[in-house]
Amino acid sequence: MSYLPPDQQTIDTLLDTVRFNEDGLITALAQAAEAPHDVLMLAWMNREALAETLATGQVCYYSRSRDRLWRKGESSGQRQTLVSARLDCDRDAVLLLVNQTGVACHTGRRSCFYHEVVPEGLRDTTAPEVTPEQLYGSAH
Amino acid sequence: MSYLPPDQQTIDTLLDTVRFNEDGLITALAQAAEAPHDVLMLAWMNREALAETLATGQVCYYSRSRDRLWRKGESSGQRQTLVSARLDCDRDAVLLLVNQTGVACHTGRRSCFYHEVVPEGLRDTTAPEVTPEQLYGSAH
Repeated sequence: MSYLPPDQQTIDTLLDTVRFNEDGLITALAQAAEAPHDVLMLAWMNREALAETLATGQVCYYSRSRDRLWRKGESSGQRQTLVSARLDCDRDAVLLLVNQTGVACHTGRRSCFYHEVVPEGLRDTTAPEVTPEQLYGSAH
Repeated sequence: MSYLPPDQQTIDTLLDTVRFNEDGLITALAQAAEAPHDVLMLAWMNREALAETLATGQVCYYSRSRDRLWRKGESSGQRQTLVSARLDCDRDAVLLLVNQTGVACHTGRRSCFYHEVVPEGLRDTTAPEVTPEQLYGSAH
C-alpha cells in the first residue's frame, strides 16, 4: 500500500472542505503504517502544510512556535513518508499513516507518547534510541 | 494488561505537570488497545475530565460545543474503558489506549477517521456498523 496523490485541483477542492480552526490550523497525528501501529506524534497543519503533504507524500507540519512550515526531518533526517491520509468525521483533524525514518520524537524516542500513567505517577515506556546530538548536531 | 489508577493525591500532582492550553484543554486521542490498534477518535479534555478518566478508568472528555463533561457512551452506550494513558513529550496531549464498546464515531463507524484521500478526492474507508437511531434513539 502506498500513497497516490490527487492532482492540484482535486487537492484544492478537498482543502475547501477542511475545517481549519480560528488560527487556520487542524490537528494532525502520525501513526506508524506498519504493525504495531504506534501513534508517533501529534502536531498541527495549516492549509499550506496539508496541501504540501498531500501533493508530495512527504509530511509537512506547521510549527506554531516557529510560525513556519516544518518539513518533518528537515533538521534531523527523521522523515515521514505518507502511506494514507484520513480526515475525521467533522473534518477538523487528520490522521497520517506513515513510514517513519528513525524516531519521531525530538527526545530520540520512537513515539512522543512515552509518559505512562501508573499507580506511582508517571513512568517512561521507552528509552531514547538516539541522542538529541545525534539527531540535531552538537549546536542544537 | 489493564489500567491501575493512581490515588487522588498522585493524580493531582500529575495533573499539575500537564500543559493545558489557554482554554484549559489538552488534545486527547483514543486508540484501540487491541490489534489492529486503529485510532478511534480525537477530542478534548479539561483538567476535570482528565482527572475523572484517570481516577475511574472510564474515558470522560470535555465537550467544547456543549461546554460540559462528556462521559463517552453516556447517551450511546459506546463506552471506552482505559487500558493505558500516556502523555506526550511536552505534556500537552494524551493518548488513551482503550477497549471500545461498539463504535467510537457518532456516524456509527468504528473510527472517526474514515475520509481517506485518494486520487479522485475523498472516499470512505468504512461504512457505518449501526445507525444513529440505534445509537441515540429516534429523537436524536
